[in-house]
Amino acid sequence: MNYCSHCASPVTLRVPDGDNRERHVCDHCGQIHYQNPRIIAGCLPVHGDRVLLCRRAIEPRYGYWTLPAGFMENGESTEAAALRETLEETCAVVELRKLYTQTSILHVNQVQLIYLADLPKAEFGSSNETLESRLFSEDEIPWDQLAFTTIRNALRYYFADRAAAQPVFPLRHITLTPEQDELVLIN
Amino acid sequence: MNYCSHCASPVTLRVPDGDNRERHVCDHCGQIHYQNPRIIAGCLPVHGDRVLLCRRAIEPRYGYWTLPAGFMENGESTEAAALRETLEETCAVVELRKLYTQTSILHVNQVQLIYLADLPKAEFGSSNETLESRLFSEDEIPWDQLAFTTIRNALRYYFADRAAAQPVFPLRHITLTPEQDELVLIN
Ligand SMILES: [Zn+2]
Ligand SMILES: [Zn+2]
Repeated sequence: MNYCSHCASPVTLRVPDGDNRERHVCDHCGQIHYQNPRIIAGCLPVHGDRVLLCRRAIEPRYGYWTLPAGFMENGESTEAAALRETLEETCAVVELRKLYTQTSILHVNQVQLIYLADLPKAEFGSSNETLESRLFSEDEIPWDQLAFTTIRNALRYYFADRAAAQPVFPLRHITLTPEQDELVLIN
Repeated sequence: MNYCSHCASPVTLRVPDGDNRERHVCDHCGQIHYQNPRIIAGCLPVHGDRVLLCRRAIEPRYGYWTLPAGFMENGESTEAAALRETLEETCAVVELRKLYTQTSILHVNQVQLIYLADLPKAEFGSSNETLESRLFSEDEIPWDQLAFTTIRNALRYYFADRAAAQPVFPLRHITLTPEQDELVLIN
């Protein structure tokens, strides 16, 4: 950030009065331009014993497999965002079951929410963001072709939780640091 | 938003190629300035049969009671944000038990996360954001002096869940619209 989006004056990076962190401050109009983490919402769609993945048609990680997920928009709920992204990226209409993983990705200032969801009909497709969508059984998952560490975590947790005698799929709280993130390419 | 924070040229509000929503676009340098919901993280601290509330020393809702909560910062996790805000606003050191309410507040583009937390020692205080902190039993809660609808919801759920024979405190997914929000003063 170089200029004030309100008045176009140059901004200064400094700690405002009464604050304890550096912010982009406009000394002309007085605006403080806060920057905060953004939310990524998506789904882990389940159809029988298979899960729905989609293959990215955009960078980063073009051609790699992922779960449908994307930036939450103003004016919508986290649940609406997860459903919308799933529809946009896989053409699939799913039913949310529960919030399953909540990952704070420290190095990119993102919080990723993945909802466990049911895909009642095996209907899905491609889009301008997705080369193809496909159902995978556990032994078909392309573990070395997954786009992001967060997606691999969600799938690992899912198959582990599913193996329990009485699966409960507890909410997983995850903090991802650069050191833990083998795939730091997430934008 | 009037000007590009990158190059100071005026921005235009229009739908970029390949998008389906209006964004602030800079036709000079090409930057698209996305605006997304922000996360508020906080705690519902429990000490024995009482909960810790604090009284706001800042607008909006100056003088009203609330749970300690505030904007999540870049570079921290949601859990760290909840602990930090609790410490900053009530001087209390708490232990997170679980994520308890997740509220999408549509009209202010916020997602509020309240963690159920244990306050082991009855040690708390005031701060530059808080006039005072105090423990309240259920029949002492100042229901007509609460700052925000989200806080009232969290407290209502808590006392209802606590009354169960075997309390489980399930995660509550809430979407708050202006119509449902009797206290639309949240900033
Ligand atoms: Zn300015
Ligand atoms: Zn520009």
